[in-house]
Formats: sequence, structure tokens, C-alpha cells
Amino acid sequence: MPYRAAVDDYRFLIEDVLDFASLRSTDRFAEATEDVTGAILEEAGRLCNDVLAPLQRGGDLHPAKLENGVVRTSPGYAEGFAAIAEGGWIGMSADPEFGGMGLPMTLTSAVNEMMSGACLSLQLAPLMSQGQIEALEHHASDAIKTLYLPKLISGEWTGTMNLTEPQAGSDVGALSSRAEDNGDGTYAVSGQKIYISWGDNDFAGNVCHLVLARLPGAPAGTKGISLFLVPKFIPDENGEPGERNGVSVVSLEHKMGLHGSPTAVMQYDNAKGWMIGREGGGMAAMFTMMNNARLGVGEQGIGAAEGAYQLALDYALERKQGRSPVEGGAGTIVDHADVRRMLLSMKADIFASRAIALSCAYASDMARAGQGDEWAARAAFLTPITKAFGTDVGIAVSETGVQVHGGMGFVEETGAAQFSRDVRVTAIYEGTNGIQAMDLVGRKMMDGGEAANRLLDEIEADAETARDAFPRMADAVWQASETLREATEWVAGQSDMNERFAGAVPYLRAFARVLGGHLHLQAAMAEKAAGGSGAREKLARFYIQRLLPEHQGLLAHAQAGAEDLYALDVEDLSR
Amino acid sequence: MPYRAAVDDYRFLIEDVLDFASLRSTDRFAEATEDVTGAILEEAGRLCNDVLAPLQRGGDLHPAKLENGVVRTSPGYAEGFAAIAEGGWIGMSADPEFGGMGLPMTLTSAVNEMMSGACLSLQLAPLMSQGQIEALEHHASDAIKTLYLPKLISGEWTGTMNLTEPQAGSDVGALSSRAEDNGDGTYAVSGQKIYISWGDNDFAGNVCHLVLARLPGAPAGTKGISLFLVPKFIPDENGEPGERNGVSVVSLEHKMGLHGSPTAVMQYDNAKGWMIGREGGGMAAMFTMMNNARLGVGEQGIGAAEGAYQLALDYALERKQGRSPVEGGAGTIVDHADVRRMLLSMKADIFASRAIALSCAYASDMARAGQGDEWAARAAFLTPITKAFGTDVGIAVSETGVQVHGGMGFVEETGAAQFSRDVRVTAIYEGTNGIQAMDLVGRKMMDGGEAANRLLDEIEADAETARDAFPRMADAVWQASETLREATEWVAGQSDMNERFAGAVPYLRAFARVLGGHLHLQAAMAEKAAGGSGAREKLARFYIQRLLPEHQGLLAHAQAGAEDLYALDVEDLSR
Repeated sequence: MPYRAAVDDYRFLIEDVLDFASLRSTDRFAEATEDVTGAILEEAGRLCNDVLAPLQRGGDLHPAKLENGVVRTSPGYAEGFAAIAEGGWIGMSADPEFGGMGLPMTLTSAVNEMMSGACLSLQLAPLMSQGQIEALEHHASDAIKTLYLPKLISGEWTGTMNLTEPQAGSDVGALSSRAEDNGDGTYAVSGQKIYISWGDNDFAGNVCHLVLARLPGAPAGTKGISLFLVPKFIPDENGEPGERNGVSVVSLEHKMGLHGSPTAVMQYDNAKGWMIGREGGGMAAMFTMMNNARLGVGEQGIGAAEGAYQLALDYALERKQGRSPVEGGAGTIVDHADVRRMLLSMKADIFASRAIALSCAYASDMARAGQGDEWAARAAFLTPITKAFGTDVGIAVSETGVQVHGGMGFVEETGAAQFSRDVRVTAIYEGTNGIQAMDLVGRKMMDGGEAANRLLDEIEADAETARDAFPRMADAVWQASETLREATEWVAGQSDMNERFAGAVPYLRAFARVLGGHLHLQAAMAEKAAGGSGAREKLARFYIQRLLPEHQGLLAHAQAGAEDLYALDVEDLSR
Repeated sequence: MPYRAAVDDYRFLIEDVLDFASLRSTDRFAEATEDVTGAILEEAGRLCNDVLAPLQRGGDLHPAKLENGVVRTSPGYAEGFAAIAEGGWIGMSADPEFGGMGLPMTLTSAVNEMMSGACLSLQLAPLMSQGQIEALEHHASDAIKTLYLPKLISGEWTGTMNLTEPQAGSDVGALSSRAEDNGDGTYAVSGQKIYISWGDNDFAGNVCHLVLARLPGAPAGTKGISLFLVPKFIPDENGEPGERNGVSVVSLEHKMGLHGSPTAVMQYDNAKGWMIGREGGGMAAMFTMMNNARLGVGEQGIGAAEGAYQLALDYALERKQGRSPVEGGAGTIVDHADVRRMLLSMKADIFASRAIALSCAYASDMARAGQGDEWAARAAFLTPITKAFGTDVGIAVSETGVQVHGGMGFVEETGAAQFSRDVRVTAIYEGTNGIQAMDLVGRKMMDGGEAANRLLDEIEADAETARDAFPRMADAVWQASETLREATEWVAGQSDMNERFAGAVPYLRAFARVLGGHLHLQAAMAEKAAGGSGAREKLARFYIQRLLPEHQGLLAHAQAGAEDLYALDVEDLSR
């Protein structure tokens, strides 16, 4: 069976679980009616199933290559990207003034997720453009916007993000690329950047790089960083690609997966660039787009998980092995309890992470529609959870997908291993999952835990409402939320940040676990209200009874503090 | 820093934690004095560090290849195998009558683990021979033993295991390869076998295959299976490789990792074979060696974890990024709390799984030294735990190793990704980890939970002893053991096997978690008794406070039963 985008799940979450009516009642998103969102999900689903999914294997087998300084992309990727562009999917949430569709991020997130499940390495290209579009919308001059945005939104040109340098990864502030004022409104940008996803390609008329660099005399650290737009070809007076700029691809990385996506080392030698935003405002401009970029990477993890799940399910429905332990079963390994356990764990975690991601996108839409700062705080709080949990689910589910395949999972022909290899990087790029967790317990709890507690209040109020219909599930979610609240108090109460950081990763995961329980319960409630089949209730029961209890051990870990982490010295670690 | 075999850890476990004095007081292992074991560990360590570890990368970059029907192995593998053979490491535990060293499996296990950490794909070759040696020792005729054992033990010839067929994987009983009596004491074996590790090579004088097949008219299922020894070259009257036998390599698999190990599809066309054991006794013969083979695969996981840990630690000690959050730190990322958390989790789980594996090997040695059936039951009970937990630790630790490397982890040059790809198969072959868990709650609890409870009694008695020295740790271990005891009662009380199977994987993992806590506590006690530095106590504290609590959530999952697993029907799963 080929890939089939999980259109019903997105529609259910949007129409029945999230309060989309409120969003539609705003001026900004009044046009995102149920008919429109339904049609969009269907159409994007067709693109994913028919055009993108068939490209996935070829990207792995025939990686992007650097030939004489030119990046040659994998077979069919040019056509795949053209189809994405023609559908308008790059600029779904972009400003209509420049050709965008102005749709909610919730929809864009759903579409990004389904494209990721179909062909992760190709989907990364439009995701990069989306980040650039957002940065330019917020920070570029009108002239730059008028010239670049329509071409990026239409897919005629593509965009990249250039932050990392060999000595400056998680510590962006250590970067040393330089920009000097040319005196004519442009800058000469020089330096080397690494890990540049889709740093070049052979299908776009131009590749536009957003590059972080320092002006001469700029202060050290992040405050001295400015942002520059550096196109591969300098636009001529008609806005068409003209002279070749001083930027080149030095090499492509040989990676564990995601072979269809060229990961470049980029060299800038006095390349002509335009400053985006104010001098020294590079990091601020990056932060603008970072939330959505992180949400986008979280969606990549979830999409890959969906693809891996479908592949494993299809295999389990086909593969005969052993006597079926149940009467009237399918007669294949799907009848075995442990295979069921694996499949249900995959499905339950996919739903949990998907619901968290769409809740995060919804909060950012409500904020953008002017519905209050609390929504912005909600989105900011959910973003690192979405990114880290979504990508952890991607890794764990694709890993389980390999396991469901048995020996066939380790053999590359099935594609199960590819999901596992491809998705691995999502826990690393756009801020490692450790960085996400530190963001959650640090920056996102500078409010003393207010955003967290508001969320926990909601979870508990909803659990109270659900008590009549689903007493056991509601109680389990309520109890878990209380345990999480105690841990949240502990975390927010630590003035020494390192005490928080010591348990940040287990804390984030526990928060995701509890949120997942909440959203599964909400799904069961929504299904009941709509008179559904009971399938969502059953999945919720699996999650709440078997996966949710994990939060206890995690929260013990989360509150154990930093001291013991440093008790063993370096010699002890090496012994 | 290159790989360095964890010699001190093995020695500490053998001399200070396990009761090796009792083993040495037996006739069988009287010669394994402290001097001997120490010298052996040192010498094996040197081989691993100096000869095997340098081959690891090349095996990945230059996979074994099939050229005109001949398997060409990776660069240096022939020399590496020769070095293993010359050191006597293949036949460490084999019968001295045929050239073996007759040493305890505990030592063989330690050496197998360190070789796995150095070069997993090559280590798989001697591991296969070890399995064959054991099967022949127990079931072959004297003539076969005299001819084959010295050559397998010396490494002049190598051995393989041929169980799986396309339609018969976990369900071995479904195999259809056939053997017909030639009337001269030999059989004509025909059929296709898949996933044959080291199915052929270009460095051994002969490759000897143990093949499961059916005689005409044999009953269906496992009872109709017999075992045959089929050499690539039929030995002539002098026992030297003679005429080519009717066995060939059809193809090699293209795998996610372990590229240096040729995984073959084997074709048998009226190949001449000798029956090993009795007619219909193939599975019984396989079971003889299965415990040690599974222990060996568990050690592979632990070894890979050790290698991945060392690589990650070296990177963390070198890589500068961000301000150090602690005074007087190393000035590299090892100072960051989350990196510490990752490294300590890796180290603590490696120790736990290593201690479990050596406890299992020790129990099998005590059994073989005639110290009572209880030891055999102990070994049988610990075997699936060692295999599944050891390989799960291998996968999780190598995964964390990638994460510690950040972006460099996803790039193949560092070797971090290779550990992760290579070790993945260990959770699949020699019985998937799901099969291990079913073995644990099924066959290994046919005693009503006696072996389990005897272990729990010991854990609790030891915890009582440790209460004075380490009250908090001792109490945590004791409590965890009690929780596990309740779950064990529940599991053993289920007469419907599917109820047990539904939670088998989380039950196995929880058992490993508790055993790990016990063994960490024992290590702290042993260190204290020896007046050590306190490093083992600190690591124990990390494990017991942060990782051990995981058992609670797992045991909730373990006792949730089968019903909910089947509540969602196949259509629901596909939606």
C-alpha cells in the first residue's frame, strides 16, 4: 500500500478538538471556512500520495551530488518541488499581498506534516523557504519584500538559513562571519557556514541565503550579530537573476540519512548582501521565525512517524508468521499481542504529538489574529515541546517500525530503515532537543511558570468535565497533571538555572506525556459528542493506561538536581 | 582517542561483584585464577584496541561484496580474523580436548563484549563459530567432533547457523528446506536460507553450515526438524577441504549497517550434509546453543554501547561550545548539565547491562561446573533479559552518542552514526526482543515464577545488607523489587499466555531496570569494601535516583492485559 496522508486525523483535530470556530470568527482567518480547510487538506493529501511519496526511495538511493560546483538533486525532486510550488503550498500562510494564501499556521502545519511523511528530504526545501519568507515579511524593507517575496512564495526562487559555523553551533553567538558596508546600501559578506540544508539546488532560478554575520567592531556574542540576505545571483534592474555572487558550495556532507537533501558547506567571499532588520538585530530577526521553524521541524518528526507507521502496519497486515493467538484474526502478525502493542504505541504517540503540534500552531494563529498575549505565550511554551517530542516520536516510531519488520527492517529495500535514518537529524537541527528543553525550563518559564500553570489549569478543568463520561481516564489525566504541577513548581522555583537544566529533558518529555493524555481524552470526548465509532476512545485508553504512567519516572528524574551530575569527575567518566 | 577495552570494569565485576571464588573452587574452572583472568582480559583488550578497532570504519565504507559467487570481505578483516584466531579467542570456552581453553563463559562474554565494541561486524564471525562449536560439542558424533572441532576452534574453518527461510523467521517451525538420506550416512540437503550472517568469506579454508531441514515424511512444525552440518568444501580422506559442495551464496543483503558482515541468501542444492543429533532433534540441538548465542548478542549490544559512549565522551571533552556553567570545569561541552545527563545515562546503563550479562554468564558457568540446577534456571531466566536489555541499551546509547555529537553525529565521518546503524540489528536477530520477552514471561516462567522470585529474594536480602551503608539507595532498590514482585505474581498468575505476552516487553525491561539497580548497589558495596574512590557509588546514585524509577510506568503497562490491544480493529488501525 502506498502512503496515504492522514487527512481525517487533521480534519478531526481542526474541526472537533481545537476551537477553530473562534479562529474563524477573527477578521484575519475568516476565510478559512470548514469547506476551505477540508478542500485544502484533501488537495495537499493527493499531492503527497501521488507525487511526493514516490520520490522518497530515490532520494535515498541517489543522493544530491556536487558536480563541478553545481548541486545535482535527486531524481524527480525538481518536478516534486515544482508541484509543491504550483499548489501554492510554500506560501500557504504567507502574506496575500505577495502571493501568499494567508491561511492559518494550523493548516500549514498539517500540510507540512503530511509532506514530511511523504518525502522528508524534499519537504525540507519548501520549509526552508517558509522560514525565509517569514523573516523577510517581518524585517525586510519594502523594496526587498517586493522583489523577493513573490519569487520565494511562488517557488521560482528558494531560501536557506545560514547560522552555524564550525566553532558556532548551539552557541550561535560565537560565529565569526563578517560583513563590511559597501557604502551603497549593500554589504560584503565573508565567512564559512556549515550544515546549510538545501544550500543549493538545480531547479530554482535563484537561491537566497539569509546569513548571520558581524559588522566590524560589533560587540562579541549575540548582540553583535546582524542578518544579511545574500542571493546566489544578484538581481538585475528587472529583478531577474544577474551576475553570480561570491557564494559557493564547498562540499556536501555524507550523512546518515536525508540523502535527498543537500547539506552544504557554504563559502562567502565578499558576497553582496542586504541587511535585513537593524544592525545588531540578527538574532532578534532569527527569533521571529524560530518558533515556526521549530514547529515545522516537530512536524517533520511526526510526519516521518506517520510514514513509518503506515509501512509497518502494511507489513504487519501482510506478513504471515506463526499461529494466530486470537480467533477470527487477520491471520498475519498483526494478530500477535506484541505486534499490536508496537502498532498501538506508534499510533497513540503519533496522535499525541500531532495534537500537541496543531495546538501549538493554533495558539500562534490566535496570537496572530490578535486574540491576546496569552496565546502568544501558549505558542511559545508549546513550541519546544512540539519540536522535541515530535522529533523524539519520529525517531522512536520509525525505530519501532524497523522492529515490526523483523529482519526485513534492517534490509534497506523495505524503506523502514530509511525512515529511521532520515528522521534522526530532526532531533538535532533547528536547536537540539536538549536546547529545546533548556528553552522550556529557562526562557519559557521566566514568567515563573504562569504559562505552564495556565495550561495545567485547563487540563484539569477539562478532566473534570470528562469525569462523567470517562471516569478512569479523566482521573488518570487529572492526577498526572497534579504530579506535573508539583514538578513545575519545583523547576520554576530553582533560581540556579543549572538545577533546571539538569532535568530539563525528562521534564519536557513528561510535560508532553501529560499533554498527550489530555489531548487523547479531549479526542475521546469530541468523538463521543459527534457520535463516533469509539475508536478514538480506545486509542485514548491505550495511551492513558500504558504510556502516560511514564511521566512519574521522568518527573523523579526531572527534580533530581544538578549536583550528582558533577559528582563524577572527568577521570571517573573516562574509566 | 582510540577505543580502549573496558578491562577494569570486567575485572571489577568478576573479582569484586560476582562470587568468582566459588567458581574457582570447582574442578572445572580451578585454573581460572585471578592471575589468569587478569592476563586474559589484558591481552584481549590489547587485541581489541590495537588490531580490531582500526578495522571498524573500513568495514562500513567498504562492505563485504559478492563477486562471481565469491564473498570478498572488507579491508583487513582477514588479518583481523586471523589475529582473533591466533589469540585463541574463538575457542576460549571450548573443550580443551579439541584445542579450546575451557575457560568460564563469564570470561568469554567479557571478551566478546570488548571485541564487539571494537569492531562489531567482524566480531560476528567468531561468534557464529562459537555457536557451531557448542552445538557440535553437545550433539555431534565423535568422528565429526574430531574432524571439525579443532579446525573451528583454531579458526582455520568458520561456522554459520542456517535457520531462517523467507516464510519462516520467528516461526522456525514453518521452514521447508529438505534433506534426503543418501544411504551412506550422509544426506542431500536442499532449500534456501536467508539472513545467514557470515554465510561465506574469503579467509577461511572452509565454511561449515549448520542447516535446519526436514526429512521426507517428517511431521509439520518444530518436531519434524533435523540439523545438518553442510561444509562448503567436502573434507577429503585427510580431512582437508576437497570437492565443492552444492551450496552457494545467491546474494548479499543491502543493510542499514553492519556492512562488514556479509548477510547471505544461501542456496542448497543436494548439498552433502551430516546429521547432527537425532532425527527430529534439530530444535533441541538449537536450543542447546541458543542461550549462549543470545548472551553473545546481548554482549554485542553492550559492546557497541561502550564504543559509542567512548566516542561521545571524547567528543564532549574536546568540543568547545558556550560558556561553561560550572567553575573549574573542563571548558568543553562536558560541563553542560544536559551533556552530563546524557553521558551518565549512557555509562550507568552500560554498567547495568554489563553486570546483568556477566551475572547471566556466571550462572551458566556455575551450572556447567555442576553447582546445581538452580544455576541453570538462573542462567535461563537471565538470558532473554541480557539479550533484549543489552541490545536495547546498545541502540539507546549509540543513539544518545549521536545526540552528544550534535550536527557532527548525523555526519558519517565521526563514526557515531555507524554505531547506531550497526547495532540496530542486534534487537532483531537471534530472536527479536519481542520474542525474548515472550520467552521470559512464557517458557522461563513455567516454574510459576520460582526463578524470578528467587532472584527477587536475593535482591531484597542484599538491599537489607546495604541499608546501613547506603540507606536511600538500598530502600529504593528494595521498594522497586517489591513492586516487581507484585507484577511478577500477576504475570505468573495469567493462564492465558496472550495476557502475559501483551505486557511482556515492558515487563522484561522493568526487570532489567530493577536488576540494574541491584547490581549498581552491589557495585557500590563492593567498592566500599575495597576502599575505592566512591565513583561507583556516585554512578549507582545516578542510576537509582534517575533511571530506576522508570520501572513504575513500565510495570503499569506490563499488567494492562491483552483486551485493549484488540479493541481497535484492523480498519481502526488503518485510519
